[in-house]
Amino acid sequence: MTAERLGPRQRPPGHPEVLSPIFWRDGRVIVLDQRRLPDEEIWTAYDSCDEVVRSIRDMEVRGAPAIGCAGAFAVALLTRENLPSPELRRRMREVVEARPTAINLGAAVHRMANALIMEKDPAEEAQAIWRDDLAACHAIGAHGAALLPDEGTVLTHCNAGALATAGFGTALGVIRAAVAAGKRLRVLCDETRPWLQGARLTAWELTEDGIPAEVIVDGAAAHFIASGEVKAIVVGADRIAKNGDVANKIGTLGAASAASVFGVPFYVAAPTTTLDRSIADGSAIPIESRSPDEVATIAGRRVVPPGVMLRNPVFDVTPARLVGAIITEVGVHKGPYSF
Amino acid sequence: MTAERLGPRQRPPGHPEVLSPIFWRDGRVIVLDQRRLPDEEIWTAYDSCDEVVRSIRDMEVRGAPAIGCAGAFAVALLTRENLPSPELRRRMREVVEARPTAINLGAAVHRMANALIMEKDPAEEAQAIWRDDLAACHAIGAHGAALLPDEGTVLTHCNAGALATAGFGTALGVIRAAVAAGKRLRVLCDETRPWLQGARLTAWELTEDGIPAEVIVDGAAAHFIASGEVKAIVVGADRIAKNGDVANKIGTLGAASAASVFGVPFYVAAPTTTLDRSIADGSAIPIESRSPDEVATIAGRRVVPPGVMLRNPVFDVTPARLVGAIITEVGVHKGPYSF
Repeated sequence: MTAERLGPRQRPPGHPEVLSPIFWRDGRVIVLDQRRLPDEEIWTAYDSCDEVVRSIRDMEVRGAPAIGCAGAFAVALLTRENLPSPELRRRMREVVEARPTAINLGAAVHRMANALIMEKDPAEEAQAIWRDDLAACHAIGAHGAALLPDEGTVLTHCNAGALATAGFGTALGVIRAAVAAGKRLRVLCDETRPWLQGARLTAWELTEDGIPAEVIVDGAAAHFIASGEVKAIVVGADRIAKNGDVANKIGTLGAASAASVFGVPFYVAAPTTTLDRSIADGSAIPIESRSPDEVATIAGRRVVPPGVMLRNPVFDVTPARLVGAIITEVGVHKGPYSF
Repeated sequence: MTAERLGPRQRPPGHPEVLSPIFWRDGRVIVLDQRRLPDEEIWTAYDSCDEVVRSIRDMEVRGAPAIGCAGAFAVALLTRENLPSPELRRRMREVVEARPTAINLGAAVHRMANALIMEKDPAEEAQAIWRDDLAACHAIGAHGAALLPDEGTVLTHCNAGALATAGFGTALGVIRAAVAAGKRLRVLCDETRPWLQGARLTAWELTEDGIPAEVIVDGAAAHFIASGEVKAIVVGADRIAKNGDVANKIGTLGAASAASVFGVPFYVAAPTTTLDRSIADGSAIPIESRSPDEVATIAGRRVVPPGVMLRNPVFDVTPARLVGAIITEVGVHKGPYSF
């Protein structure tokens, strides 16, 4: 079989209420194309590892925990190819290297490798990784909700929502849990250039849930932080070092800096699969740079003069001293961090 | 006469070497449409006050000092209409109110009002305002160049260049003067959403001058500040309060916050016409909010889902304590400021 285009509103088997951007169904991987939202809701069923790897690389699926699930599903599909062991290992490394910054991808592939050694069923293990991520998001929400104010405005950057995870979200999971607990929150969503995940995805998710959301340009975050309107900031993470330094979408560090200057609490919500205990601090986190074309052209129109250079690092590292708390499925961690 | 479309590369009379976005020639106001750069270089000659006011309001001309020149020229054209005095005053207020944040607009119109009282020739006075602004930019450059490093990267936000002034620029004037003095600088240009003045205008100006420029998304500024690559930040201003609080393009405060957290010097370059001694601090500066459509649509494509709200404040206020120096044509001022 090859990739098959599906109809709208696909939901994971057994979880008809969960918006999940990537899940396993009947031996195939179902993926929502996040590049096309909110204009179009395009779902595709994939049957091969290579298709899923391309999906990760091209950002059809994005968000560190969701990328982890994608990596696990890719390996599950790979095991069907009955490859000789050296070739299998090489192809698994390809999965890990599809994107460099999110540690969840490597963590998921390593868990799959262990499952193969233990002769567990790969498809079952990949689905367990997905279920564990969904459960982690709900636990993160339960732990983090208490940190948010009873009412007022919360700011978030990029998309750390259902669309970035198996479902429910990390940063947006905290907001969802707080709203479910009766807190009256509204959310300022940084639009998050260059991919506009905040404008396209976070605002879409929250609006679907009936949570008031407003989009601002990334440069406006500091203004609303300084004005006193923003009571708390909560974001996700792509990798967290042993000392609590946090890699997340480019622009996170600017919001954290303004939060520090103006005394607004800054929180990070992420599953423990995002922790990288192998690195002492953020300086060892590889920061992905993507094509300058992502910055140079918007909706097909070139906005930068020919001949002008561009740089496009897509993550930044927020030092632990700027992070008020890190919320995982295990609980709320405060600095000094030592994971 | 009505508005007349002109050919490319218009230059002010007597200053063939000066790129000036708005100037007076033969009783008409010549304006470069900055909304169309860098795709198209469209120059128009206007003959009426109303046309120039619309040009300010619609951001065909932008940048606080350039808006001041535009206001002066608008009044010079207005005086030709031979209006009764109350009507003249009402129309002059309309000029002042074309945009609220840049104080230079009010300052220029007040200077024109004084010239009328003193029975000076309005066209001569407006051209004197233009010449004074050009001279101020060169003086700002001369004073500020010493603050920049001998080599390395300088970051700027929005466009405080030739295109924002009568010519030469304020922040970019400092960079130009430093380069002319032999300093080996490269410039990181925040793209500056939502209007992309950094990507479209600053990068264009610097590239024309042979100064190495690279465009980054606004969210990447903190990353390059924290990494140690950025040695100094220099921006312009739309209004400066008595205590040194600085209103400038939205996004300035985020860069200033990151500069403060990571110990990078943050400088503001502006002519003294930008000082507003009538207000004690930045809390009294009116912050213009513009149409949400400026954020919602990019190059005609809607990037925010229907039903999602947007907010679009276009300036922010950087507290004086985050400002390492304010450079005017009078010299380099350091805090605590008292203008």
